[in-house]
Amino acid sequence: MDTSKKTIILFSGDFDRVMAAFIIANGAAAMGDEVTMFFTFWGLNVLRKDGKVSTNGHKKSTLQSMFGRMMPKGTGRLGLSKMNFAGAGAPLMKKVMKQQNAMSLDELVESAREQGVKFVACTLSMDILGFCEEELVDGVEFAGVAAYLGEADEANVNLFI
Amino acid sequence: MDTSKKTIILFSGDFDRVMAAFIIANGAAAMGDEVTMFFTFWGLNVLRKDGKVSTNGHKKSTLQSMFGRMMPKGTGRLGLSKMNFAGAGAPLMKKVMKQQNAMSLDELVESAREQGVKFVACTLSMDILGFCEEELVDGVEFAGVAAYLGEADEANVNLFI
Amino acid sequence: MDTSKKTIILFSGDFDRVMAAFIIANGAAAMGDEVTMFFTFWGLNVLRKDGKVSTNGHKKSTLQSMFGRMMPKGTGRLGLSKMNFAGAGAPLMKKVMKQQNAMSLDELVESAREQGVKFVACTLSMDILGFCEEELVDGVEFAGVAAYLGEADEANVNLFI
Repeated sequence: MDTSKKTIILFSGDFDRVMAAFIIANGAAAMGDEVTMFFTFWGLNVLRKDGKVSTNGHKKSTLQSMFGRMMPKGTGRLGLSKMNFAGAGAPLMKKVMKQQNAMSLDELVESAREQGVKFVACTLSMDILGFCEEELVDGVEFAGVAAYLGEADEANVNLFI
Repeated sequence: MDTSKKTIILFSGDFDRVMAAFIIANGAAAMGDEVTMFFTFWGLNVLRKDGKVSTNGHKKSTLQSMFGRMMPKGTGRLGLSKMNFAGAGAPLMKKVMKQQNAMSLDELVESAREQGVKFVACTLSMDILGFCEEELVDGVEFAGVAAYLGEADEANVNLFI
Repeated sequence: MDTSKKTIILFSGDFDRVMAAFIIANGAAAMGDEVTMFFTFWGLNVLRKDGKVSTNGHKKSTLQSMFGRMMPKGTGRLGLSKMNFAGAGAPLMKKVMKQQNAMSLDELVESAREQGVKFVACTLSMDILGFCEEELVDGVEFAGVAAYLGEADEANVNLFI
């Protein structure tokens, strides 16, 4: 076992939980650890490109289109898990973070990339939710649960967030 | 430490989180790992038999009966953690899963059993929620936190979902 | 690696999840394990002193004051993650726990302390939410993500709750 490897399954798409995941990932990377984040279910929303995306003829079912339209695209529109106040909670939280000069979620994501944190999108969740690779940001790998388990076996800290 | 052992505490009774837990459990079992799932609190609902169950004279308090009536029985009635739309979200998610030929939750549970995943119901949660053994599906073991910790000590991946 | 060390990140402030965290922490401590609980985001509410606290001139922004007023102080006012019924769920759950002679959350917290479970408050979350040390109960350590990772590297079970 390699004590310098960490994995995080980011299942949640809540702003506060996503923040926590990236704070841990950045911290571990800064300490020299190899970190892999697996984005699954609602966590995939973090990786979605904002705006219209050409999907190369990728077909979605009506239900998939509906889920797609109702779920947030990217880090900018995630809600809080608590005290969301119909969407007002996350902007207030971001404002208070800015006042405290805390890193924004976008900065944390960028920093994680720069530090070499590996982003893996769960292909099974993508199939169910109807996301194609073009809809997700660049630099993401695509894999399933077997890949996750392979990495988790080599890591000494494995979190499900 | 045995790198081929995994434990999952399934605390959540949300359809999406339960799905994630069973996908991981099945994946690990398919790779030859020994997997133990501990069902606690809302997660116990996954193991409840549907319909009326004779409970051999097991007495419940009024509150326990109330909690029992309001919580879902089995996999068929679990809600989504997000976008539940007063119960409409989970059926829509199931429909889109079927369209994608993804395994249903029932199939995942059955497959986990067939692959030898061990199901353990948390006895403390059962006492609090007033569930007796007869109300849960067959083939479940009953144990407390000490049993969990004993297994977690031997595992190399321990998730709380 | 020391198989007798456990860490729990308590991110959630939901009564039921907090209960689960303390049941695991107490169980592990009773088995002789060294346990560290990291309280972050909503989990910090568990450590807040009830009532008015003199904060030695610590200044909060308007937003921080607002978040502070709206979040529960201490274990007494936490809500359930499910079936909260506008706040009625947690008292009902506590009542049924009492009927079953289960330990109350306050007793679990006290027992964890007596067994030497280490409580660490996440300083980054404190900065964002505007909590100063005087607002949290005594006997708590203050540290950031690096301290967490240092302990997690030495532990064999690391949970995010």
